[in-house]
Amino acid sequence: MPKKVEQTLGITVKKSDFAEWYPEVIQKAELADYSPVKGCMIIRPNAYAIWQKVQEYFNPVMHRIGVKNAYFPLFVPESFFKREAKHAEGFSPEVAWIANKSSDEERVAVRPTSETIIADSFAKWTRSWRDLPLKINQWANVVRWETNQTRLFLRTREFLWQEGHCIYATEDECEKDVLLVLDEYVKLAKDLLAIPSIPGQKTEKEKFAGAKKTFTFEGLMPDGRALQLGTSHNLGQGFMEAFNVKFIGNDEQEHVPWYNSWGISTRLIGAAVMLHADDKGMVMPPRVAPVQAVIVPILFTDSKDAVLQEAKHLKTELEAHHIRAHLDDREEYSPGWKFNQWELQGVPVRIEIGPKDLQHKQCVLARRDKGTKETASLLNAKDRVKTLLDEIHQNLYDTAKRFLDGNRVEASSMDDLIKHIKERKMVLAPFCGSATCEDHIKEKTEGATSRCIPFDKKASGVCVQCGKPATSMTYFAKAY
Amino acid sequence: MPKKVEQTLGITVKKSDFAEWYPEVIQKAELADYSPVKGCMIIRPNAYAIWQKVQEYFNPVMHRIGVKNAYFPLFVPESFFKREAKHAEGFSPEVAWIANKSSDEERVAVRPTSETIIADSFAKWTRSWRDLPLKINQWANVVRWETNQTRLFLRTREFLWQEGHCIYATEDECEKDVLLVLDEYVKLAKDLLAIPSIPGQKTEKEKFAGAKKTFTFEGLMPDGRALQLGTSHNLGQGFMEAFNVKFIGNDEQEHVPWYNSWGISTRLIGAAVMLHADDKGMVMPPRVAPVQAVIVPILFTDSKDAVLQEAKHLKTELEAHHIRAHLDDREEYSPGWKFNQWELQGVPVRIEIGPKDLQHKQCVLARRDKGTKETASLLNAKDRVKTLLDEIHQNLYDTAKRFLDGNRVEASSMDDLIKHIKERKMVLAPFCGSATCEDHIKEKTEGATSRCIPFDKKASGVCVQCGKPATSMTYFAKAY
Repeated sequence: MPKKVEQTLGITVKKSDFAEWYPEVIQKAELADYSPVKGCMIIRPNAYAIWQKVQEYFNPVMHRIGVKNAYFPLFVPESFFKREAKHAEGFSPEVAWIANKSSDEERVAVRPTSETIIADSFAKWTRSWRDLPLKINQWANVVRWETNQTRLFLRTREFLWQEGHCIYATEDECEKDVLLVLDEYVKLAKDLLAIPSIPGQKTEKEKFAGAKKTFTFEGLMPDGRALQLGTSHNLGQGFMEAFNVKFIGNDEQEHVPWYNSWGISTRLIGAAVMLHADDKGMVMPPRVAPVQAVIVPILFTDSKDAVLQEAKHLKTELEAHHIRAHLDDREEYSPGWKFNQWELQGVPVRIEIGPKDLQHKQCVLARRDKGTKETASLLNAKDRVKTLLDEIHQNLYDTAKRFLDGNRVEASSMDDLIKHIKERKMVLAPFCGSATCEDHIKEKTEGATSRCIPFDKKASGVCVQCGKPATSMTYFAKAY
Repeated sequence: MPKKVEQTLGITVKKSDFAEWYPEVIQKAELADYSPVKGCMIIRPNAYAIWQKVQEYFNPVMHRIGVKNAYFPLFVPESFFKREAKHAEGFSPEVAWIANKSSDEERVAVRPTSETIIADSFAKWTRSWRDLPLKINQWANVVRWETNQTRLFLRTREFLWQEGHCIYATEDECEKDVLLVLDEYVKLAKDLLAIPSIPGQKTEKEKFAGAKKTFTFEGLMPDGRALQLGTSHNLGQGFMEAFNVKFIGNDEQEHVPWYNSWGISTRLIGAAVMLHADDKGMVMPPRVAPVQAVIVPILFTDSKDAVLQEAKHLKTELEAHHIRAHLDDREEYSPGWKFNQWELQGVPVRIEIGPKDLQHKQCVLARRDKGTKETASLLNAKDRVKTLLDEIHQNLYDTAKRFLDGNRVEASSMDDLIKHIKERKMVLAPFCGSATCEDHIKEKTEGATSRCIPFDKKASGVCVQCGKPATSMTYFAKAY
């Protein structure tokens, strides 16, 4: 039933037209806005707060792994791109270049990713095995000059991310961190953003330009399209050789280090919107919500002071319990208007206090995810809100997880695969791993690509395309 | 006595050649490195940690003022620059442009600052007096395509900063925050980085391109050159008019908001290096030091385990006291080598523990700023380190403050001014405020510019250049 006109509160109904609903909910919830420059976006405070929570969560994780934050230049000399052939080939179509250039200067790119410029520094900083491992991260903006359609948070010409870059004396250490970081990403998505995902390895065709192996974690969006949530690459020694990075080992011989890189981006915010938001607006995952509980006092002239006093007291109590609370005491708006506004912005818990509640020493707690209400004693409210925030987080995750699990199926033949892709499923199929077969599958399914080879499924049967023995079970889906 | 060869530990002696010493100490202390792209720099973990402390300090300050973090695009359409004439004129020589452009697309700049692109969004987001004040900040990279000589942290083609952008219904509110932020900047420099500064207003000639008034806080570096540490602008209504930002007031009439913007940058790190570092390397202001106390155990075969155990215990105790502690238990380096390395990196307190110390239940505390040593009981060490960190902060500040106060003088005539500028002083002189006089002063002093009009000095006497009645007392100095 395609009904473009079906709307609530000026937002297209999510189920009626997902593609229309998505940018509308983002703009109305004040998460982001389009920029006057084509393909760029403005990340508004409601969404930037989520990104800051991601940083606050992930900085200590990196600290534990021994990774230190640094900052490398936005600009990369053209010659750097050319040094690692596959990397150059993969990125060159979407590199933005700087026009200013005097005749004695090399052409300069705006970074689409920083492997080359960081590898160049590693060459300067690495002399001995004592300098390894060397683990660096940067929180930065990157630019990919997309000519295809862009989408808020999911595909824009500029986006924010963190990119970790580490080098090691041995491949074992290198690969261990590649998988450790992937695991931490999956946890971050689950524990912070209530996003379930499937981790696994990318196929040869889908791996990062210049990588030996790429690992990914993939989400499934409500429209049945997969979304790559982040990646972790074992880059082998290619970049190190190209940039002449060497170290003298314990054995007094010269060696080449092993290199990995890994990143997550503001795309995660897009995933949270797609999975959790609804027809009333955003639903903030509680642990990243800039406001976790909003207090809306019901004000009448004769009881205003008493109600406001109690509301302020409650706000102080909530804050003392480390709950991000806001008191909306504006008098120029009605309670109903405020309810709508805070629902639109996705605040997990709304607390209502009116004169009658005051008499009963209680308040009303409304949860954003289910829309249900309950009363709580004023004495107990802070503890109940704390629990509610966890319950809401769990409910958002469980709902998304049920959707993911209910929409992944197995196929053993091409007909099966085609049928399930049409049904917008994420389809696990036996696969030989060849890029040619992958191209054929994409053609026959009208667009499905390989998403990942999950860790927990052993290869069995024959490739759905070529009939040769499968080397892996691989997920296929249409993707963002 | 110019002695380029005078060095300790491979670093030029600070007093013998300040200009050589500065980049050397930065590179050897692993604060920053040159980039292969001309005029760009790599901010290494030791310096990025300082920047993160600035963020951790200033985010709560902004939160108190009601400012929210957001992120605006790196790219600004060319037409935006042209809308505010003075702004365009001021920035156009140093704008970097993107070369990628299809024929239907406008030319795009890499942001040198974000007034125009943010004003454009303010126009979308502002309807009513209820939407004001609207207070936004972003932590971002900006690009100014310098053609002059660049200097690590002080002048590079790309740097990191925060830029606050706020609009208000009234000029009073606007100006109040301009001065409040300036005051917070001065406090940040003092309390976090141990940098004393002189706040004041910029002259007409030196104010920001497009501002009504610019306020600044200026530091004085050991070579007698002033350094603008940050600025806070009352932008008036010019940008708002150019971008058609309006609001319906309480009076139901249409009004134009008042706009301010303000910023501090990674340049502050350069100021901290110039003021505090010495011939042995960096001296980290304790409150931003990534490592505040390093424990160097003196290891002999027979007592190694006991010493290491005590060292680990002490590290745990220091951390429990919120001191950023590091235990350097590497066995491949001698204690002496480690002492040098940590001095080079500027760790404020070094703690030595050897077998003899263990016998006496004590350790040795060495402070980086003065080089003095003292013993402390192991029981008492954590408290003493805490106090020492504050004492070191205070000593760094006091030393820099004595230098600043000892090198600012007053002049009442042009001869005086010329003489004091030659002596590398910061010179307060009566001034009429005209740009023409300022040009003449610059010429006659061979390069001095106006730094600021301090708040606490009343105009008296006549302009040192034209002899007309002074409108202000203004600081002049050669500057970075």
